[in-house]
Amino acid sequence: MSEKPPNPGKNVLIVYAHQEPKSMNGSLKNAAVDVLSKMGCRVTISDLYAMNFNAAATRNDIKGDLCNPQHFCYGVETMEAFKKGCLCEDILKEQNKIHDADLVIFQFPLYWFSFPAIMKGWIDRCFVQGFAFDTPGCYETGLLKGKRALLSFTTGGTEHMFSKEGIRGDIRYLLWPIQHGIMQFCGFEVLAPQISYAPEHVSEERRKEMLNNWTQRLENIWHENPIDCTPP
Amino acid sequence: MSEKPPNPGKNVLIVYAHQEPKSMNGSLKNAAVDVLSKMGCRVTISDLYAMNFNAAATRNDIKGDLCNPQHFCYGVETMEAFKKGCLCEDILKEQNKIHDADLVIFQFPLYWFSFPAIMKGWIDRCFVQGFAFDTPGCYETGLLKGKRALLSFTTGGTEHMFSKEGIRGDIRYLLWPIQHGIMQFCGFEVLAPQISYAPEHVSEERRKEMLNNWTQRLENIWHENPIDCTPP
Repeated sequence: MSEKPPNPGKNVLIVYAHQEPKSMNGSLKNAAVDVLSKMGCRVTISDLYAMNFNAAATRNDIKGDLCNPQHFCYGVETMEAFKKGCLCEDILKEQNKIHDADLVIFQFPLYWFSFPAIMKGWIDRCFVQGFAFDTPGCYETGLLKGKRALLSFTTGGTEHMFSKEGIRGDIRYLLWPIQHGIMQFCGFEVLAPQISYAPEHVSEERRKEMLNNWTQRLENIWHENPIDCTPP
Repeated sequence: MSEKPPNPGKNVLIVYAHQEPKSMNGSLKNAAVDVLSKMGCRVTISDLYAMNFNAAATRNDIKGDLCNPQHFCYGVETMEAFKKGCLCEDILKEQNKIHDADLVIFQFPLYWFSFPAIMKGWIDRCFVQGFAFDTPGCYETGLLKGKRALLSFTTGGTEHMFSKEGIRGDIRYLLWPIQHGIMQFCGFEVLAPQISYAPEHVSEERRKEMLNNWTQRLENIWHENPIDCTPP
């Protein structure tokens, strides 16, 4: 029996969706890479715009013949293709990154109360049945069990707008379908979201504070407990 | 002063996202086209997969020079491009369809508690500031005021799964960010969603019933009142 190293490195995948490297999202991503690397983690980045990642779930995601070319069903065909090793290369690459990750961080600007489409497409195409979940094989038995997921995003609106009294309503409503319906469904333990409110409407000093909050949090990330995602 | 025709035709835009024409979503779309056409409505379809609609919000959405090429901000650049008539052709075409529509129907399979990415991309790219909303110019004063929106979607899970007691939670939670955060934000009046639960797991007879329910509802669609979208 070989002894485990005293401080085994953890693998972190950052799925990143912003067009501009100099954006707040770019800075939050860079800050995470820096601090996690210093902590001895192996950090992998999927920079979706830079990769020109294809968001649309189509027949091209399956190499070779379909099970039922007369009636194309994306979910069934990708499940079968996964089993046979016939998913297209860009999905396989991303699935390997997910497989290796102890923690997946989603870094993005909130677009219409959700992911930008390019990131939604990453989820639609990578979280294939048989890989991320199965029947049975969801929630407590989700196939990505043992991994953690964390949403780190910026908003256009202020924190007050996303409060119970605010015009956009409690932010936990929009987090529920994502954190419960996607992450917990696939077995991820969900860490508290890192929300950087309205960075475009605050001072440079406040933006630095947001970045500091993020890096300080990440220094203790392996000691965090998962959260309950239930809406209010 | 010219007299208005007694029964002016209404314009309906169906934004449709399914890869397979023979799918339940395809049938629901076709049924809507049939009944609405018979009623004298002018129906326009945006068949997103057939159009190979680009989902990603990128610099290519702006023709010509950027306002700030040193620091690309998608929201600001598309707002300015809209004002100057410099948005790319595929966005302009869709915006014209939206402009002409009295009712926009979104027909799609629920992917991960939300739109398929290709449809999310349609929203991300078409609902540009200055066209769909502005500051001020949202909610009651949203720029798409006077139009109606209706989500018609199929699910993988059963109706019980999406109930208060069900594993996926009350479906109104996932509807809130879409119906309030997108549709009502832009000024749309929201009609009740048409939810066809788990068509792949029911009998052919039940599927026909779902299609009939949809066509019968559409026959009276212009008499419907908008709903309140508040989550439970």
